[in-house]
Amino acid sequence: MTAAPSAVTLGPESDLSEVFELAQQLRVDSVRASTAAGSGHPTSSLSAADLMAVLMTRHLRYDWEAPDNPAADHLVLSKGHASPLLYAMFKAAGAIDDDELMTTYRRFGHRLQGHPTPVLPWVDVATGSLGQGIAYGVGIALAARDLEKQPSRVWVLCGDSEMSEGSVWEALDKAGHHRLANFTALVDVNRLGQSGPTELEWDTDAYARRAEAFGCRAIVVDGHDLEAVDRALTVAADGTAPTVVVARTVKGRGVSEVADKNGWHGKPLPEDMAERAVAELGGVRRLAVRGPRPPATPDTARPADASKAATVELPRYEIGDKVATRAAFGAALAALGARPEVVALDAEVGNSTHTEDFKKAHPERFFQTYIAEQQMIADAVGMAVRGYRPYATTFAAFLTRAHDFIRMAAVSQITMALCGTHSGVEIGADGPSQMGVEDLAMMRAVLGSTVLYPSDATSAAALTAAMADRDGISYLRTTRGAYPVLYAADETFPVGGSKTLRQSDRDRVTLVGAGVTLHECLAAAEELAADGVEARVVDLYSVKPLDTGTLARAARDTGALVVVEDHHPEGGIGEAVLSALASGGHHPAFAHLAVTDLPGSGTTEELLDAAGISRGHVVRAARALLDR
Amino acid sequence: MTAAPSAVTLGPESDLSEVFELAQQLRVDSVRASTAAGSGHPTSSLSAADLMAVLMTRHLRYDWEAPDNPAADHLVLSKGHASPLLYAMFKAAGAIDDDELMTTYRRFGHRLQGHPTPVLPWVDVATGSLGQGIAYGVGIALAARDLEKQPSRVWVLCGDSEMSEGSVWEALDKAGHHRLANFTALVDVNRLGQSGPTELEWDTDAYARRAEAFGCRAIVVDGHDLEAVDRALTVAADGTAPTVVVARTVKGRGVSEVADKNGWHGKPLPEDMAERAVAELGGVRRLAVRGPRPPATPDTARPADASKAATVELPRYEIGDKVATRAAFGAALAALGARPEVVALDAEVGNSTHTEDFKKAHPERFFQTYIAEQQMIADAVGMAVRGYRPYATTFAAFLTRAHDFIRMAAVSQITMALCGTHSGVEIGADGPSQMGVEDLAMMRAVLGSTVLYPSDATSAAALTAAMADRDGISYLRTTRGAYPVLYAADETFPVGGSKTLRQSDRDRVTLVGAGVTLHECLAAAEELAADGVEARVVDLYSVKPLDTGTLARAARDTGALVVVEDHHPEGGIGEAVLSALASGGHHPAFAHLAVTDLPGSGTTEELLDAAGISRGHVVRAARALLDR
Repeated sequence: MTAAPSAVTLGPESDLSEVFELAQQLRVDSVRASTAAGSGHPTSSLSAADLMAVLMTRHLRYDWEAPDNPAADHLVLSKGHASPLLYAMFKAAGAIDDDELMTTYRRFGHRLQGHPTPVLPWVDVATGSLGQGIAYGVGIALAARDLEKQPSRVWVLCGDSEMSEGSVWEALDKAGHHRLANFTALVDVNRLGQSGPTELEWDTDAYARRAEAFGCRAIVVDGHDLEAVDRALTVAADGTAPTVVVARTVKGRGVSEVADKNGWHGKPLPEDMAERAVAELGGVRRLAVRGPRPPATPDTARPADASKAATVELPRYEIGDKVATRAAFGAALAALGARPEVVALDAEVGNSTHTEDFKKAHPERFFQTYIAEQQMIADAVGMAVRGYRPYATTFAAFLTRAHDFIRMAAVSQITMALCGTHSGVEIGADGPSQMGVEDLAMMRAVLGSTVLYPSDATSAAALTAAMADRDGISYLRTTRGAYPVLYAADETFPVGGSKTLRQSDRDRVTLVGAGVTLHECLAAAEELAADGVEARVVDLYSVKPLDTGTLARAARDTGALVVVEDHHPEGGIGEAVLSALASGGHHPAFAHLAVTDLPGSGTTEELLDAAGISRGHVVRAARALLDR
Repeated sequence: MTAAPSAVTLGPESDLSEVFELAQQLRVDSVRASTAAGSGHPTSSLSAADLMAVLMTRHLRYDWEAPDNPAADHLVLSKGHASPLLYAMFKAAGAIDDDELMTTYRRFGHRLQGHPTPVLPWVDVATGSLGQGIAYGVGIALAARDLEKQPSRVWVLCGDSEMSEGSVWEALDKAGHHRLANFTALVDVNRLGQSGPTELEWDTDAYARRAEAFGCRAIVVDGHDLEAVDRALTVAADGTAPTVVVARTVKGRGVSEVADKNGWHGKPLPEDMAERAVAELGGVRRLAVRGPRPPATPDTARPADASKAATVELPRYEIGDKVATRAAFGAALAALGARPEVVALDAEVGNSTHTEDFKKAHPERFFQTYIAEQQMIADAVGMAVRGYRPYATTFAAFLTRAHDFIRMAAVSQITMALCGTHSGVEIGADGPSQMGVEDLAMMRAVLGSTVLYPSDATSAAALTAAMADRDGISYLRTTRGAYPVLYAADETFPVGGSKTLRQSDRDRVTLVGAGVTLHECLAAAEELAADGVEARVVDLYSVKPLDTGTLARAARDTGALVVVEDHHPEGGIGEAVLSALASGGHHPAFAHLAVTDLPGSGTTEELLDAAGISRGHVVRAARALLDR
């Protein structure tokens, strides 16, 4: 490779011929890093190098030594596979050195992963599942403007292939709706996807028309014309409108052997080709960049600090009163709003999920995302990135719409609370499309998640509050109908615990339920007791983590467990209990009642019974275990 | 209620004053049915009654007595909550009677459910999860035009609230891309959502601009001006372009007490209000409709019939050769293409998933959906509705993007095959965003699903073929890397079976794996054997249904099981095995190795080892069980 010249530092005052040298350096380093790693996406990096060189030199107001400066801009690499380009930028900014880039990229145990994640201090959110970066960018821009009141701007670099994801338009609709003038997306229209030409190829006007139709300003540029790019980014940063810069580019730009050629997606150049490429690009450079500094604004107190002084008065319920857990969630969330870091989001069902209580109490921290569950989660992620505690809520069934966003939030190690209402067949007449019967499986399998499932209003309120102090992604499953309050208002519900509602020395079977099925278990225990069979009843309000100790004791004491859940049998409470017991070597006789057939419409009672999870079925299952 | 006049039959020749009477009848019946049921969405039905009256009288070419006529049009009620309107149409068409409408709607055990499902012969797909109907409509239109070569047209009625779902624009992009001139969406812009005004309220031009930007023709009309609606639908049906009719309407139209009033979403009118409403609407009518007949086209053979003659020659592999299961999937799928009902869809990763093999062999039945996983599933559902056997494929991780569509496909009782490639940490350097480690939990919890996970090329090919004869939603999980072929080409792999690859009378532990972990189990067994410990090894290629018999025998024979999976511990193979054993009362000592921490980049070996699922960990887990 060519010998490196001595270091030169570029800044906003540098002329575009110098910026061009930086772009070439980003290209060279993208090629070098991916060839050294033996995998990666150099050609997707080369197309966007000019865009990024102009951005980081003249527009991105960033402090590379203090990336948590709240006034600083944000850069989201939606096309996460172009990580060589991002890391080459980090090197140019002096955040990492050439050695780290060349010897650790994509290697085990190192932070320069194949797709960027927040293990890097300059990365807000993990990307690599395409079509998500714009959505997160919108969430961060919304948090910066409406919650933090900071002058930070958000820049998102996305690919053209990912513009076919509906989530992109769901997000741009919100950029337009909120008039997020602090938001800019740069679309790197390099015409070639992974397996061939993209859907719109170089039809940059089509992208522009779409962006404008969704309420954004669109600017079409030649993405290799540095002056045009600079003008576009200057306009984008004028603070008047959300902007989409549609940049026509060439994949593999600058390296004639691969430029605009199909078949080079996601492939590092072999060493001999890499050497020729570096030579063609003008050799290795040692340019450094210090771009514009973030504006000097007061470093306002982060919301979490102000929170300590807040007094939260959770709602109190009388034992025996009939209250829906979703109603208790809403009331508790409104009370939690006393903590300034707590924000609520809802997908146009706030009168069902009861987030409308929060909206009434704290309208400035309530976000209506309309029917857009993916963007709701992306907004929540953006707010979490900025230090807030989002509670995002819709029907349990409709959280499945955002599964990929929730999965990626876990990769980003985001802390947020989710609430899914209308769980199970319990909802009644609306029918199966509205019934969450897969949500426990989905949420349990999220890395590091907490899964809570209260059976009464007191525990629902307490667990809603508990989520505000829990790291990672927490999920609260609530029920549509109103059921008797079981616990006094001063009862505590530690995460990982359970409640034994009924027990004696003569217990011969343990009935385990949560939500509506706990009430069925209690009724079943009454019926069994009337027949002389004592049953222990456990309220499994914490599904993950699970109270293995109590279950193990119950297994030992009674020798028989019936687990009843308003969910499909796979991945729910039953399997969680089996896992916990097996890990402790406990093997009671076991019956598992769950929803195994397609439900229809009906009353709650009819549907619970048809699904085989009503009190009568619990009684029969318990008897069958005892008669075995 | 008002007395019914005698029956009159409307048809395409009826004038619009008669069509208005039909619209009023649809309104009256929507009010009556929901009031009688005590729940439902009358106001959302009232806004669209004029649109539907014009459609069914003059444009919907349908045979209500033979809904499977392949030349007939399709109607998809994307706003599934407006089921009273749909069922009122069924009554007007003579498909159901007034008694069924009034006494069974939303009642247990009956087919007129809260949201429509295909238990009704006139319903193609279940709706009720908003933002899906347009997507399914696009899929059906594509199948009708490009596979069936039938003149059928697709009409989709959607609400305005659901237009904020990205999936709507993902779908309209495809309507434009494919130039689906047989597709029309009618957007009922009634301005009010569930909890308040919609995002765009009555900005019908905004909807029109968006539809046009996505390649559709847009027509804005007053949705209560029957003549304007009729003109718009005539244009829509001219066969020149996909069309979006944007209809400005009034929610609750025709009933002054609720018209354009917030707070009446999803609420039946109380009986006294209903009586006043029916009177205001002109009382109960007895109008019948016979709309235009489907064109008389030859009833071409359904693809499944032609299939019987096809000879499928699956690829054959030599034991010991290293072949990736994803490659075997692609080769087997290409071979299966000999069956004319088999179609393949891919989300722009066909060179990774190997569906490109199918594309080469059968380009006319390969569908490139670009990066649009939700639409890929919706296209597959549309093709399944029309009798084809779709195989839809992308990375396992990215199938989570389509979770809600897969869930709803199960409610629709669709038969289709999915394949998720690049499962687990096995993929190596790309990092966690690309690793499917939640897919087994998601797919096991799908109602009626089949979940297959081959470990070698022979079984992958056989199971790919097996999915073509399996009802419901089947899922094949494949692996990125190439591993030794384990089975001879004539080996059979029944769904619900397993293979015991190593066993003896002296087995003291059973190692259970699938995919890459099976190869780790085999290596671990070698290592244990070298130390004098015989281990049984089970290839669990069928995860759902599971081979309970073999596992029970292994539990009994060896007393100890180690289950190893490249997936999060929740909802995967380990819990599937525990469930199966518990149901049979088998309780071996049990160890479960799975991915419990956030992985990074690295080689396969490094990542398997870091996740604790490599051969060394299997050996240690087995020893720990034996030493217990």
